[in-house]
Parts: sequence; C-alpha cells; structure tokens
Amino acid sequence: MTASQNEFSLIERFFSNIGKSHFPVELSQGDDAAVVNVPVGKQLVMSVDTLISGVHFPELTSAADIAYKSLAVNLSDLAAMGAKPAWFLLSITLPKFDEVWLSEFSASLKKISRQYQIELIGGDTCRGPLSITIQVSGLVDHNNYVNRKGAQLGDLVLVTGELGNAALGLAHLQQRVALPTSLIKNCVEALNRPKPRLELTGFLTSYASAAIDLSDGLVGDLRHILNQSQKGATIRLDSLPVNDFIRSQQAYDYALTGGDDFELCFTMPSQHKYIIEDWNHKNPQCKLTHIGEITESDYELVGNHTTENLNNWQGYQHFE
Amino acid sequence: MTASQNEFSLIERFFSNIGKSHFPVELSQGDDAAVVNVPVGKQLVMSVDTLISGVHFPELTSAADIAYKSLAVNLSDLAAMGAKPAWFLLSITLPKFDEVWLSEFSASLKKISRQYQIELIGGDTCRGPLSITIQVSGLVDHNNYVNRKGAQLGDLVLVTGELGNAALGLAHLQQRVALPTSLIKNCVEALNRPKPRLELTGFLTSYASAAIDLSDGLVGDLRHILNQSQKGATIRLDSLPVNDFIRSQQAYDYALTGGDDFELCFTMPSQHKYIIEDWNHKNPQCKLTHIGEITESDYELVGNHTTENLNNWQGYQHFE
Repeated sequence: MTASQNEFSLIERFFSNIGKSHFPVELSQGDDAAVVNVPVGKQLVMSVDTLISGVHFPELTSAADIAYKSLAVNLSDLAAMGAKPAWFLLSITLPKFDEVWLSEFSASLKKISRQYQIELIGGDTCRGPLSITIQVSGLVDHNNYVNRKGAQLGDLVLVTGELGNAALGLAHLQQRVALPTSLIKNCVEALNRPKPRLELTGFLTSYASAAIDLSDGLVGDLRHILNQSQKGATIRLDSLPVNDFIRSQQAYDYALTGGDDFELCFTMPSQHKYIIEDWNHKNPQCKLTHIGEITESDYELVGNHTTENLNNWQGYQHFE
Repeated sequence: MTASQNEFSLIERFFSNIGKSHFPVELSQGDDAAVVNVPVGKQLVMSVDTLISGVHFPELTSAADIAYKSLAVNLSDLAAMGAKPAWFLLSITLPKFDEVWLSEFSASLKKISRQYQIELIGGDTCRGPLSITIQVSGLVDHNNYVNRKGAQLGDLVLVTGELGNAALGLAHLQQRVALPTSLIKNCVEALNRPKPRLELTGFLTSYASAAIDLSDGLVGDLRHILNQSQKGATIRLDSLPVNDFIRSQQAYDYALTGGDDFELCFTMPSQHKYIIEDWNHKNPQCKLTHIGEITESDYELVGNHTTENLNNWQGYQHFE
C-alpha cells in the first residue's frame, strides 16, 4: 500500500455519521454495499447527478458550497417527484488529499443532510479531477409520485421562487454583468446554495399533474413536461417571478434559459387555483407563481407586444 | 442551446433499453428520477463505484471493455453481499461526443446487463475527463445478506477462481513482465472482464459467515473481514489458486496484493467443508479453493520455510 493510498483510507473518517434518515438503515458504510429497508406500501425513487468542477460549479467555489450544492441538486430531483428523502451514496474524486478542504466539505454535507433528513449510507473515493456524484433515494406512498407526463389541457403552470438568480450570480462571478450591489448576495447564493423545494412534497402529491425541477432553464425544462404530456403551453413574460434587475433590463433570458435555479415548475388543474394564495401566505419562503396555462399544442411566450413560438427557441435575446 | 449540448442530448438514445430486471420498474429513464417497487420481504442492497480512465482501466481500454468492467465491479459488490441484481443508475462523463465509442459502450453494457438481469433505470451525462459511475441495487430476503463481520474462530477461508491474473494482465500491458504467450489472453481478460461471482449467491447466503470481493488484493481485503470480525487468519501460500507462472516464479505478490481480481473471498464454518468438492464438481467455471482458517488474532502467511506476519505487511517481495 502506498502512502497516497493510506491517505485515501483516512478520507473515510470525513464521511461517517452524515445525516440521519427517517427510514431504517440495516447496514451502513464499511461493507461491500449498504442494506436498507423499504417500508411496505412505499415505492423507491432514485436519481443520480454528477457535478464537475468548472462545469457545474466555478473552480473557485468553496468546499462547503460544493458539498451543499451536490446534495441539493439531487434532493431537488426528489422534490420534483414528490418524494421524501431517505438515503444517499457519494462517490467523490479528488485531485489530492487536503484535510482542510475535506473538513469543510464534510461539515457542510453533514449540515444539509441533517436539514433534509437524508443519510449517507455508502460511497467511493478516487483520485482524479474534482467531481462529485451523488445518488439519492427517496420514498413515496405507492403510486403517489409526480411525473412529467400528466399535464392536461387548461392546467395552470406554476413555478416556485424567483427565476434567473442563479444564472445572474454566475454572470456576476464571471464579470459578464454589472449587477446592482443589493442583488449580488442573493444571486450568488442562488447559484451556490439552491434550495431543494421539499416543503412542497405534500402539495405536489395532492394537487400537481406534472412536475420538473429547473436545472437547464424554464423554456427547455417545461418543454420536457409538454413533450411527455403531448401538450402545449402559454407562458406570460409579465408573470415570471424575476428580480427588479431582470425586469428593468428586460434581461429575461436569465430566467428563461439561464438554468441552475433548481426551482420547481409544475402543472395543476385550474380548480385548485384558490390554494395558491393560501400556500403563499403560509410559506413566504417558497412562493408559488402562476405563469401560464397548458394548451393543446403550441408552446408560446406572450410578451407585451409580441408572442414568440418557443418550439426550437434559441433564447430570448435573439428576439429583442 | 449550443451544438455540443444538442449532441449530448443524443447520447440518451444509446442508453435506452439496457437490461431487464426480474423486479418491477414503475418509471424508468426520462423523468427527474426512477421509481421502482421493492417486493415485500426483501431488503435493498446498494453500492456505488466510480471508474476513472488511467486509474481503474488503462487509457487504451476499449469502450466495450470499459462498459463491461464498470458494471461488473459493481455487480461484484452485490455478489459479495449475496444479493440478486435488480437495477442500476449510470453517470458517465465523456470528453467528447463519439458515436462509434458510444455505440460500442452501449452494446457491451446491454450485453452484460442482460446476462446478469439488471436494468438501467436512469442516469446523467456530463462533458469532462472520461469516468463512469455506476450505482447498483440488489435485493436479498430479509436479513439474509452476507457482511464482513461474521467470521468465527475455526472457519475456513475460501476464494473463487484464480488470484493474481488481473494484476499480471496489467503488468503485461505495461510491459513490466514477460508473460508466457499461453497466459496472456487469460490474464488480460481477467483485467478487463472480471466475472461477478453471482452464481455463488445461494451458496453464500446458505453457508458463508463473512464475504468480501477482492478489489485491492487478498491480504488487504481479507484484513477488512478480520478487522470487522475481530479475528485473525492463517493463509497457506501453497494453497493459493494461482497460475503456473506465479507458482514457478514465486511471484505471489500478484495474487496477494495485486488487486483487481474481483474474485470473492469468504469464510464458512468448517462443518460445511464437504460441500466444496460437490460445488467444484458442478461449477468448474467458479471453482472454490480453501486457502486457510480463521484464528484468534494473528494474521499470518505460511510458506514452505517461513511464516510471515500479515499485519502491516508491505507485500510479498520484501520478504523473499
């Protein structure tokens, strides 16, 4: 065994006791595999996402932010399914053994995994270019998950939170935009610390006809719902929940195609419209905005003076 | 959307219809997450392994061999637990869109996943240095899995197949050894196409007291069983199942610390000894060899003239 392998075996101690699940773990880390119990009546919901340095987060991102975001984007997939988090596996590739970096990563991972009640049950550590792969498992009551194919004619299209902040945060860090000082903190936090919208789980499984999380931007992600549901949609520019900068600069592309917001977009029958105001009153931290409707087939963006066809759309800036 | 992103969306078609599970899949690829049903009375067994080009396989390895090995080493973890394969998730990072490479990778993944009856239910694709992360799920009857901590005093230590062939294959490819021509094919195949020993599942859950798969080499991997079981072991050099080259050259280090064999090492009560011959008669492709016994505390290798202490051992070559 070489010295570097010995170092790598030390890494294990940074990944013990991360999170605590509501659901039973029979055998955790330290064997060839973990063993867990899926309660009778539940279905298992599974997803995997890899985050690569320089691709999914800027290279200078802190270890704490990387740990947070790696788990958050996976939790966001569970949120879009209406699933409750249960367990996760972590495969981490590191260029070198860096105790300070690992301590920060571990502490941050511990914090978010406790917050969302998900437990680390196993993983793998390799030497190589920095990347993090997390596989999350969640649970839903039998057949009570939300997929992408249930949108019906006349359903409302809703989104959580504000759109475009993460893309603005990235543009600010890359010095591509002169962002008002008052917005910087909020936008950089939206990029590095996206909130998995798990508080919406009960709402979605009760009312939503289809849902998706916004990783690539509203226009492309909503298109997945439309394709799978074989429907169209009309989105109103004026209704988009965006900050003052995007509104005043007409910089809607951040919100429409920017990506990385990890807000949820979902559809629901219009008779449930009355619930939105009540939800927003009780959950100001996870505000819902009604941005459009499901239509027969066309996919359109209605602006003040024009209506744009969103099929094969190449981005808002090309039309202004 | 850039051209390269469009290319990457095409990748999805290479990963449809890969494998078929015995166990029900409710919702497969194409949503935020997959949904599966764990049958009542079963426990879920989960593992994840990342393979990085140049670390876990030589850079010139074919796409077909990479696909095979990526799944095989994960299946090997399920085999070591005595679990039946059910589903897997794939996260693949590729430097570029290469249709020929992807076709080969996909065809090979399809072949091995069908052979071992495991089904691809979701994944993620990124651009970056070539690496493959697979997360496998298997199932066991409730509490009928094999872990690392059950080895008892007097238990037999057994291994499957031959040890050291994968490390010899790598040494041959790296021109570090002059291997007899007759052994080359077998050793390179051991490196690139390790056999997950899933045929042993029923045997292990019936008779084994502890098990592990040999990824890092016998001495280190058996040590994991001993540490978790709080026992020692005696291994007999003469009993190790090795090829003629290793035996004649006394090149036992390939078998003891070489790694990458992905054979299984397990322990079982000595009263089951009579079963070994019967198993070997019926399963010549997965021969079991009795290589030693579990002892109170010392971890020793018994050679013809010497006995070496294997605690903190640095490899066979240092002692000859």
